[in-house]
Amino acid sequence: MPHEIKLVTEAELRRVVHLDLEIVDCIETAFAKLATEKVVMPPVLSLALPDINAEVDVKTAYVPGLDGFAIKVSPGFFNNPSLGLPSLNGLMVLFSAQTGLVQAVFLDNGYLTDIRTAAAGAVAARHLAPETVTTMGIIGTGVQARLQMIAAAKVKPVRKILVWGRDAEKAERLAAEMTVALGVDVQTASDRLALVAESQLVVTTTPAKDAILSPDCLHPGLHITAMGSDQEDKNELAPEILARADVLVCDRISQCERLGELRTALEKGLVRSTENVRELGAVIAGEAGGRTRDDEITVCDLTGTGVQDTAIATLTLGKVIKAQAGTTINA
Amino acid sequence: MPHEIKLVTEAELRRVVHLDLEIVDCIETAFAKLATEKVVMPPVLSLALPDINAEVDVKTAYVPGLDGFAIKVSPGFFNNPSLGLPSLNGLMVLFSAQTGLVQAVFLDNGYLTDIRTAAAGAVAARHLAPETVTTMGIIGTGVQARLQMIAAAKVKPVRKILVWGRDAEKAERLAAEMTVALGVDVQTASDRLALVAESQLVVTTTPAKDAILSPDCLHPGLHITAMGSDQEDKNELAPEILARADVLVCDRISQCERLGELRTALEKGLVRSTENVRELGAVIAGEAGGRTRDDEITVCDLTGTGVQDTAIATLTLGKVIKAQAGTTINA
Repeated sequence: MPHEIKLVTEAELRRVVHLDLEIVDCIETAFAKLATEKVVMPPVLSLALPDINAEVDVKTAYVPGLDGFAIKVSPGFFNNPSLGLPSLNGLMVLFSAQTGLVQAVFLDNGYLTDIRTAAAGAVAARHLAPETVTTMGIIGTGVQARLQMIAAAKVKPVRKILVWGRDAEKAERLAAEMTVALGVDVQTASDRLALVAESQLVVTTTPAKDAILSPDCLHPGLHITAMGSDQEDKNELAPEILARADVLVCDRISQCERLGELRTALEKGLVRSTENVRELGAVIAGEAGGRTRDDEITVCDLTGTGVQDTAIATLTLGKVIKAQAGTTINA
Repeated sequence: MPHEIKLVTEAELRRVVHLDLEIVDCIETAFAKLATEKVVMPPVLSLALPDINAEVDVKTAYVPGLDGFAIKVSPGFFNNPSLGLPSLNGLMVLFSAQTGLVQAVFLDNGYLTDIRTAAAGAVAARHLAPETVTTMGIIGTGVQARLQMIAAAKVKPVRKILVWGRDAEKAERLAAEMTVALGVDVQTASDRLALVAESQLVVTTTPAKDAILSPDCLHPGLHITAMGSDQEDKNELAPEILARADVLVCDRISQCERLGELRTALEKGLVRSTENVRELGAVIAGEAGGRTRDDEITVCDLTGTGVQDTAIATLTLGKVIKAQAGTTINA
């Protein structure tokens, strides 16, 4: 029995889906459900292809109460730039949660992932950063540096944003561009220590394999979200930072143990167990405490979860239908 | 940089892809590569949804030398028949093995899986059944009963086919239909013992959770392929059958240990270890022995592998392009 399937390209998705508060709220609700409902989220399926310098990850989650569930395939082919192609691409397939029938194929090349990843940063900022954030610091100059800035500024109106990247020229360009885009004073920082010293909210957005922030940067009233690590060999924060945090939060503890900042901290014995580590969803749902005082140090370790994919894919289908976007085929 | 993606519906795939010797050979080659090349095949990702009586499996494999790799999503929503919908559906996505870019989306609702599953049965028959098979026995009356019959008959010309199913009427209909379709005498068997007694090649194609063949059916010169079990709770053959086989072959030992007939045999201690178990690909490639005498008893345990999906998806794209089938979109 043929049914309608929506096929939507990246260009069409970029016209319909924007990083706004609706998406931040949607991702927040999804995390809360992860804590309070019978979400089914299997471990990430990884197809590791070292011989061709590539890796393919598949994420999924079933979230009770949502109309659909997504299966997301994220290929990373790191020799692509030599062919003039981006390293990352991929798609999300949305299935009906009632019948398992394919509802939509979003050929997004990672665009929806970018958006839901930045939205999670905003959710972390909303629940863990101090009440007042006058200065936000962003480490990195890539797509997520830009998007995390946009997302966090939606939940924490800041007076100033500092940017630091290994490539000073890229940092300058990003600062100039975002000053215009956000209408906020975005400046480059001379170094990472100076950036963190001045900020109440810091987001690290790099693919670093060795820590780029050391514990001497810590100060009372600081929140750090580390969203760069999503693989077993990545690491942005010195493990002492996690050990010294008053509140340590993961998007998913079982995943951060393998793929996040938490991995190194556990390996080095600086975090002894996950007993005091909290999940973002539990903090949102009020099942675990978040920041209790403005002078605490909080850290959030984000690796990216299937619930975010399912949440944004479900939201996207509604937007696509409303905008009459994409191609409809009967299959 | 937009590139062409082929979208092909089940109806279009049924016009272009047929269960023929080309596909049997393609699947055979894929299994041989699994034994001889650096195939990367992660464990199946399973999204178990007992609360809604559903389960979603994701399979994939990277096969060196093939142009693409498939990621296959197989949802099984077992309440669907009450909605007038089939339980099984799903799709395969084919990615370029060079760039990771999506090449094709096959909205096949399991059709390509049915074909590659039957082809594996033919490969097992070719390599493990006695030289001469005059009678083939099929247990079960569903889609795979039909397809396994067609596939095996292509590699083992038989004089007679016997069918047995719990529903005698369905068995009668299948026998009548296949007598016409294959031009071979297809009859129903009065019981399972009689069916196996007369057959040199038996294929079990049921979703049984308790063994439907007991060891008293065994006789010299018998080959059994059990292709029904692909979940942790399924089981078609009494474990004594595996213990008494002269040659025991799995499509993938690590998978059959969890999902196949091998699981129960190991659990009950009837097969002590996997030391003497062989993989189908190794038998094809000549790295492991198959049947050496006509009077041996051989058993093949098929659970379905990602290499088969990658192989048939890659072959299918060529056929789709040649037939100018499907919809091409730039994404």
